[in-house]
Amino acid sequence: MGFICIVGSGNWGSAVARIVGRNVQLLQRFAPMVKMWVKEEHVDCRKLTDIINTEHENIKYLPGYKLPENVVAVPQLLEAAGGADLLVFVVPHQFIQKLCDDLSGCVSSNALGISLIKGIDEGPGGLQLISDVIRHKLGIDVSVLMGPNIANEVAADEFCESTIGSRVVENGLLFKQLLQTPNFRIKVVDDTDTVELCGALKNIVAVGAGFCDGLQCGDNTKAAVIRLGLMEMIAFAKLFSNKVSISTDTFLESCGVADLIATCYAGRNRRVAEAFTKTGKSIVDLETEMLNGQKLQGPATSAQVFHILQQRGLLSKFPLFTAVYQICFQGRPVSELVSCLQIHPEYR
Amino acid sequence: MGFICIVGSGNWGSAVARIVGRNVQLLQRFAPMVKMWVKEEHVDCRKLTDIINTEHENIKYLPGYKLPENVVAVPQLLEAAGGADLLVFVVPHQFIQKLCDDLSGCVSSNALGISLIKGIDEGPGGLQLISDVIRHKLGIDVSVLMGPNIANEVAADEFCESTIGSRVVENGLLFKQLLQTPNFRIKVVDDTDTVELCGALKNIVAVGAGFCDGLQCGDNTKAAVIRLGLMEMIAFAKLFSNKVSISTDTFLESCGVADLIATCYAGRNRRVAEAFTKTGKSIVDLETEMLNGQKLQGPATSAQVFHILQQRGLLSKFPLFTAVYQICFQGRPVSELVSCLQIHPEYR
Repeated sequence: MGFICIVGSGNWGSAVARIVGRNVQLLQRFAPMVKMWVKEEHVDCRKLTDIINTEHENIKYLPGYKLPENVVAVPQLLEAAGGADLLVFVVPHQFIQKLCDDLSGCVSSNALGISLIKGIDEGPGGLQLISDVIRHKLGIDVSVLMGPNIANEVAADEFCESTIGSRVVENGLLFKQLLQTPNFRIKVVDDTDTVELCGALKNIVAVGAGFCDGLQCGDNTKAAVIRLGLMEMIAFAKLFSNKVSISTDTFLESCGVADLIATCYAGRNRRVAEAFTKTGKSIVDLETEMLNGQKLQGPATSAQVFHILQQRGLLSKFPLFTAVYQICFQGRPVSELVSCLQIHPEYR
Repeated sequence: MGFICIVGSGNWGSAVARIVGRNVQLLQRFAPMVKMWVKEEHVDCRKLTDIINTEHENIKYLPGYKLPENVVAVPQLLEAAGGADLLVFVVPHQFIQKLCDDLSGCVSSNALGISLIKGIDEGPGGLQLISDVIRHKLGIDVSVLMGPNIANEVAADEFCESTIGSRVVENGLLFKQLLQTPNFRIKVVDDTDTVELCGALKNIVAVGAGFCDGLQCGDNTKAAVIRLGLMEMIAFAKLFSNKVSISTDTFLESCGVADLIATCYAGRNRRVAEAFTKTGKSIVDLETEMLNGQKLQGPATSAQVFHILQQRGLLSKFPLFTAVYQICFQGRPVSELVSCLQIHPEYR
């Protein structure tokens, strides 16, 4: 009987481990023991893996929620993930390249992966999806799961929903069995790239929504900015796919419009962008002040997208994405946000 | 040269009169004088029409904003609208039947109408669109305009957007020329019925969103409720159209997702539903208390929709719409909202 490895043990990884640990016992298709790779660190002079394996709680990243006892923390990556049948990737996106290099050759080509990692990587063509990094380096089929899923709300069993994108729908359905609960509802679609792109691009829109809040725009203006952002997400996904037209149905899924709404009203990209407008401080200074130095994804993604659009001469078709980049990094006044949108191609 | 009549002079009608009065002079296609039908009433012992025609301000319904001097208030309906080439309907929806009866026979079949009226009427088949009432009674082509457009924000020239639905796109484009400004952006689509349905159905979803707020649900739960509401709006529009499938593109327009977002975060349906949850008072009592006795559209529309779905045996396909009705009118506990959604057909 094969086994499952959760590659990562942060806030979201631990919340997911609670679900997988329980569901694997109902499924009876994989070994009941679920390995969780934990990058070793010390908490109050004790190893985090020891704490997890004795107290069944990740007291550093998801305090207050017990893990099922069949979830076992393993500090060595190869011991945890080598030979696993199902791999659930849930590490910060900047670590994925190195992690896959370390795993390379130790994962069966029959293994299946799912990426819960939000973000996007630099690639030769400008952008590279995280799932593509995993696919290329490990040679396995990789699904993705994206949606408005704050780890603590999922751990607290609050109702929310998510989307699995899977090129092989059968694999997506298997992961759905593993991850769905009565209050964590999942739909599987085959438009995998769009599902993953939504998770990255929505953060640019959320920066625009935060600017609106900082400028004290009305609710109608903010709704217009969010919708124009959605239309630019669709246009960018089309560009990325190299297709003449793509279905917009995936944007109506949880990974699309629902995650966008939650991020534009409650996410940290919105929050920092609002502070940027009100204080006039730089994004870097606000990252230090408000996020303990962690990098905010929206501005970084806007820079990646800006350079691609600039190369292709398409900036005028993406007024919101362009304005977000120019305001964050080129000193364009936030007050110009709205005038950028008056001439949006949507209204032609 | 033909002339334009704005049929109605409330808050929204007056805001629109400011735009039409200015744009008609740029267009040079219609007589510069725009007639506005004003149901006569007295304000501080003066006739409202006299106030409007001397002070060029609707001090009762849109105080603080001047009307262009070429907008003339006319108290007799037939004198205002009879023989008009373009008719902009913007009265409360409960008055439209009587108003059209009064106008019947006095409007040229070459005239064009546009309805800015949000709401829905009772018809023999259950629901009747306001635009269909006008079409049938007056025998003219009727476009609709819907979007997240709070009258005072539009009057204050804050940026917002709207959608015109028009069966004859050329007519929609004419109304776009008449109504668009640099900060009030319009897109024309031909899917008229969907545009109008969105304006009514979103209020049911907003009641659900207000319940979420009252229950102090997290942002993820609220985003899920809004999205499931959007999916039910799409399913209902399909049912209403009697087609096997409909394009979902119109739901990505301003009349769809943008109006839905604004209404679910800032509208009065949301606000009253939150109070309903927190106080346990009835909808009728809250209408008296919070809305000066005005009827809230969301619960009323949920009742119309519920009866149609019940007749057709389709309640199980619309768990959110059904739950909103049952909670508002049948004593179902608000706390059951989420359990109604766990089994949503979206997740099958």
